[in-house]
Amino acid sequence: MTGIALLGAGRIGQVHAKAIAQAGAKLVSVFDVMPKAARAFGEKTGATVCDSAQAAINHPGVDGVLVATSTDTHVDLILAAADAGKMVMCEKPIAPSLAEARRCIDTLGDRVDKVFIGFNRRFDRSHAKLNAAVRGGEIGSLEQLTITSRDPYPPPLEYIPVSGGLFRDMMIHDFDIARWMLGEEIVKISAEGGVAVDPEIGRLGDVDTAIVTMVSASGKQIVILNSRRAVYGYDQRIEAFGATGMLISDNPSETSVKRFDASHFAAPDAYATFFMDRYTGSYRAEIEAFVDMIQSGGKSPVNAVDGFMASYLAEAATLSCQTGRSIELDVSGKPTWDTPS
Amino acid sequence: MTGIALLGAGRIGQVHAKAIAQAGAKLVSVFDVMPKAARAFGEKTGATVCDSAQAAINHPGVDGVLVATSTDTHVDLILAAADAGKMVMCEKPIAPSLAEARRCIDTLGDRVDKVFIGFNRRFDRSHAKLNAAVRGGEIGSLEQLTITSRDPYPPPLEYIPVSGGLFRDMMIHDFDIARWMLGEEIVKISAEGGVAVDPEIGRLGDVDTAIVTMVSASGKQIVILNSRRAVYGYDQRIEAFGATGMLISDNPSETSVKRFDASHFAAPDAYATFFMDRYTGSYRAEIEAFVDMIQSGGKSPVNAVDGFMASYLAEAATLSCQTGRSIELDVSGKPTWDTPS
Amino acid sequence: MTGIALLGAGRIGQVHAKAIAQAGAKLVSVFDVMPKAARAFGEKTGATVCDSAQAAINHPGVDGVLVATSTDTHVDLILAAADAGKMVMCEKPIAPSLAEARRCIDTLGDRVDKVFIGFNRRFDRSHAKLNAAVRGGEIGSLEQLTITSRDPYPPPLEYIPVSGGLFRDMMIHDFDIARWMLGEEIVKISAEGGVAVDPEIGRLGDVDTAIVTMVSASGKQIVILNSRRAVYGYDQRIEAFGATGMLISDNPSETSVKRFDASHFAAPDAYATFFMDRYTGSYRAEIEAFVDMIQSGGKSPVNAVDGFMASYLAEAATLSCQTGRSIELDVSGKPTWDTPS
Amino acid sequence: MTGIALLGAGRIGQVHAKAIAQAGAKLVSVFDVMPKAARAFGEKTGATVCDSAQAAINHPGVDGVLVATSTDTHVDLILAAADAGKMVMCEKPIAPSLAEARRCIDTLGDRVDKVFIGFNRRFDRSHAKLNAAVRGGEIGSLEQLTITSRDPYPPPLEYIPVSGGLFRDMMIHDFDIARWMLGEEIVKISAEGGVAVDPEIGRLGDVDTAIVTMVSASGKQIVILNSRRAVYGYDQRIEAFGATGMLISDNPSETSVKRFDASHFAAPDAYATFFMDRYTGSYRAEIEAFVDMIQSGGKSPVNAVDGFMASYLAEAATLSCQTGRSIELDVSGKPTWDTPS
Repeated sequence: MTGIALLGAGRIGQVHAKAIAQAGAKLVSVFDVMPKAARAFGEKTGATVCDSAQAAINHPGVDGVLVATSTDTHVDLILAAADAGKMVMCEKPIAPSLAEARRCIDTLGDRVDKVFIGFNRRFDRSHAKLNAAVRGGEIGSLEQLTITSRDPYPPPLEYIPVSGGLFRDMMIHDFDIARWMLGEEIVKISAEGGVAVDPEIGRLGDVDTAIVTMVSASGKQIVILNSRRAVYGYDQRIEAFGATGMLISDNPSETSVKRFDASHFAAPDAYATFFMDRYTGSYRAEIEAFVDMIQSGGKSPVNAVDGFMASYLAEAATLSCQTGRSIELDVSGKPTWDTPS
Repeated sequence: MTGIALLGAGRIGQVHAKAIAQAGAKLVSVFDVMPKAARAFGEKTGATVCDSAQAAINHPGVDGVLVATSTDTHVDLILAAADAGKMVMCEKPIAPSLAEARRCIDTLGDRVDKVFIGFNRRFDRSHAKLNAAVRGGEIGSLEQLTITSRDPYPPPLEYIPVSGGLFRDMMIHDFDIARWMLGEEIVKISAEGGVAVDPEIGRLGDVDTAIVTMVSASGKQIVILNSRRAVYGYDQRIEAFGATGMLISDNPSETSVKRFDASHFAAPDAYATFFMDRYTGSYRAEIEAFVDMIQSGGKSPVNAVDGFMASYLAEAATLSCQTGRSIELDVSGKPTWDTPS
Repeated sequence: MTGIALLGAGRIGQVHAKAIAQAGAKLVSVFDVMPKAARAFGEKTGATVCDSAQAAINHPGVDGVLVATSTDTHVDLILAAADAGKMVMCEKPIAPSLAEARRCIDTLGDRVDKVFIGFNRRFDRSHAKLNAAVRGGEIGSLEQLTITSRDPYPPPLEYIPVSGGLFRDMMIHDFDIARWMLGEEIVKISAEGGVAVDPEIGRLGDVDTAIVTMVSASGKQIVILNSRRAVYGYDQRIEAFGATGMLISDNPSETSVKRFDASHFAAPDAYATFFMDRYTGSYRAEIEAFVDMIQSGGKSPVNAVDGFMASYLAEAATLSCQTGRSIELDVSGKPTWDTPS
Repeated sequence: MTGIALLGAGRIGQVHAKAIAQAGAKLVSVFDVMPKAARAFGEKTGATVCDSAQAAINHPGVDGVLVATSTDTHVDLILAAADAGKMVMCEKPIAPSLAEARRCIDTLGDRVDKVFIGFNRRFDRSHAKLNAAVRGGEIGSLEQLTITSRDPYPPPLEYIPVSGGLFRDMMIHDFDIARWMLGEEIVKISAEGGVAVDPEIGRLGDVDTAIVTMVSASGKQIVILNSRRAVYGYDQRIEAFGATGMLISDNPSETSVKRFDASHFAAPDAYATFFMDRYTGSYRAEIEAFVDMIQSGGKSPVNAVDGFMASYLAEAATLSCQTGRSIELDVSGKPTWDTPS
């Protein structure tokens, strides 16, 4: 049975622990900087509580390491796990800065394919079907890609200053979706950001409403719309327009009930959900893919370079938004700007 | 230019007058038992106001006659128009009683095809498309047909006693839809009627909520659901289930606007409409078909026998509902019961 | 931890075994008439393999018994489990004949509430939401109920003679749905059955296409449509029409992908699924409800009387279809007919 | 009866002629540079055929002038009609160049409100409902606006060089929609254009696939997606996202028929339509608005300044696409660039 070490016993760690059991793998060891949280977690799951991340990684029976700690520790833990010869899955983003992300992939070298970055939306059933259909040629050449991504409500204000900003924290998922859909790199990016949801977010130096336009190496056009608040619920859609058709991965319905009365006609249920509900299935599918990767010794479906490139786009978008200029990009992820980010 | 005589200048007559103009035909003459209404109508449309129905029928330039008078005059006016050698369109039902309807088709003889009964729902764009697809073999052999027909609100109570009852007044449209979809006759009928909308309707001897089950000559199964009140608006649907597929003609949307907010998700507009809104297009298409029939000298698309057979089914349903028994029917429309209706 | 004994290690038994684990209960013992199947099952799940049903029921640690054996053994096993003081869940139908079903509830007496009949559709997320909304008064008084239930393809022909016929084998689910939606008993039933799918089914004495109309004690109207074959996939819908609105539990979508091309516009994915896919969630929810019932010592949500009444309706429908007459029913489930069934 | 002079008897002129009759107005006079076309038109409609545009304008009984001639004549004819004291409706665009458009509004002065520019999409039932809801505060403050506009197929190649390019010819409608939805001016625009549909279009110096991002004076974000070819039919959607909700004006369905078979599930009809079908109703509503404006002597709902501002945005988008830079705009429509356009 495949054994997993879990680093970080917070909320997302607990989601993963459940998915690990359902995927038929075993949670062997756990480490958290809060010993109490780690102990509680160990008692609940039967995993051995370790004193250090390294101990958890090295624990007998561990085949793969799941990094669910705070972002500033990601690179060191990825490298530690890789150095111990383990497969590793790490929550997004790969690193708190582009320089750190670059250090990670440079140090990993050939081992970038042993690292699985947790861009879980790729594992959503509908998004995955859309992607497979587009890659399978169902709409011919992809020409325009529209990604809409709106949270139901903004994060707590105290999170804003440590978030890295909307582009690095929230839109990074959409940058990954774009690269995944395109199968090629972005060569130009232009970002508009504004403050429409909460003026406090602006005062803290961030934006809460943004549109990013990108062009890919072969000339495909991409637009991403983000908002920190959608009163109608978590809004996550992909529209792929191509030469021979269009495919939309729409928001799913929670039930198939439709309501008809004096003020409604064929109205689906209201939809007040967030990522834990919407992407329950994709968290599970993601862990299954990680267990498969460990068992088969195969390549990561979302490797460290994917993690780096999403951060590269987030960095460029942040800069474009700040300067009001569009930015030409390098397909290998070399910064084309002087500003240290 | 095709010339039309209009008998009856009431509400539906005015709808037809507009459709006649849009169909490129000319309203030549008009008669109404209320001289004042006729005059007002003539002034507005330019049609010659006549002293009698016969005068309107015989007026120079009249090619076709449109009967939009009260039901008790239908048969005499149809026959008068036919005797004058005109094509005639008559509002449903063809007659106030089955005996009268029988007299009409017996007297007409071969001329039943010169008479167009105004079952306008056959001319609804979506219903017509469904019918053409089914007749064209798109779902293979038709096996089950579900017709839902609910009015937004009941008629005024004073109308109930003169209406003939739900089956003869309201469900008659659905009987026609059933025969039109099947392309064959009904051999068995069973009706359930109840009073759920308004106890006054029951006190007046009628039902307001009904389900009718029928079997066709070749064994196809049909169910019709009627209610005199649907708070969400006029509900008119056809579901045709067959060996190789299913087709549904659903309620149309008034606009393509969808609403998303804290209590709605992808909710279409509320839909509070009735037949004049829902079937605007079919009234127009019906008149166009009548004008075509006049110009081409062709056969009626909904002839006097169709009018008779719908009344025959309404009669049988009324009886089945009253007796609680299912009734075997005769494909030529001969009453299989003793009760004089 | 709640312990379960499983009687019958076939396909549905395996579905339940998985659901038991997910519900946090423990499969303690297992029995199957095929010792080999039982052993394989025991090895896979860790359950103790027993030589007899009674031994499995009496095994230490067993709190509840899950009966997933062939229909002819249901009553004896339900009674054995009940006599041993266990809660019991039994697959539908409760018994192979109405007389047997009657014996079961008569023998159980007060213990009918300790028995949970596996009408799993009640636990479907959308159906359950519809039911709760209707019972909660959202559409006012329920007036018309339409239940559509079509299988994607007929069962193997060899199954037909032992199935009991469409009404007892297939429509029995819909009879249960009807009673569950109504919250009261049926007083009149009328069935039409035909052979449209496969003439062999007719030659074997069964029908494959049926419409049943029913009236409840308070006058509500119900129609059920069944077919043994729907080429577009498993078709399971409920439409509840009431005084202040309508609710539809439609077929769910497998994904939220929509397709647009030269021959499609906003077309959802094709839907070729059957009950194991459609009702995966409801099998799970059903077992959770059973575990809850054991833990809380509460009443069964679908008790032995519910199982009996569904069989009573199936019996009456079969008779109505054979005789062409509608049948008045007794709310206590007393047969109103002489024909021994 | 309101009298109209029609200048230009081509295809769109004929659409208008029909709408004029339906609006209860009278087509009094007509002029076309092709005398033969004018004569044929006059015979068909009963309008007096005039030798010159001025004669048609001055014809007795003319209250309003409808300019449906080639773009290069628009400004002169608008001014001629205005000088003759007539209300005037003119097809978009107002002029072939921004300088000409500027000359038009400067010469008109206060009379800009007597001119109605034919941005007919504002009169589409669903778009109009969306607009009214947004202006009525239904979604709170508008924050992001997405306008999708794709033609079913590109125009003939010979049209490309005289079209003015995608931004001036096609996207000009969307610029107008944006201003109409916002109720304020644009202050920043950035355009990406590419050639994905037909390389010949690129060789002729135009683009066929474009995304434009704009920011309004108060910081609202707008994105427009255009393509010259959508195989699934004419794609015209507006998505308005705001503080308290979202509204989408989706593509309408031609019928309400849904198809279910082995490869389709709830699939609406295919949708191969173009503007003459999609916007039939809006052409009619537009003419009704023009007749109303004449009769009431009111202000134009889409005046000459609206015509100018759409051209201003088209000009700026063209320049942004050519230079790869975003462009800051002036709310009064003063060019902020040196390049003569």
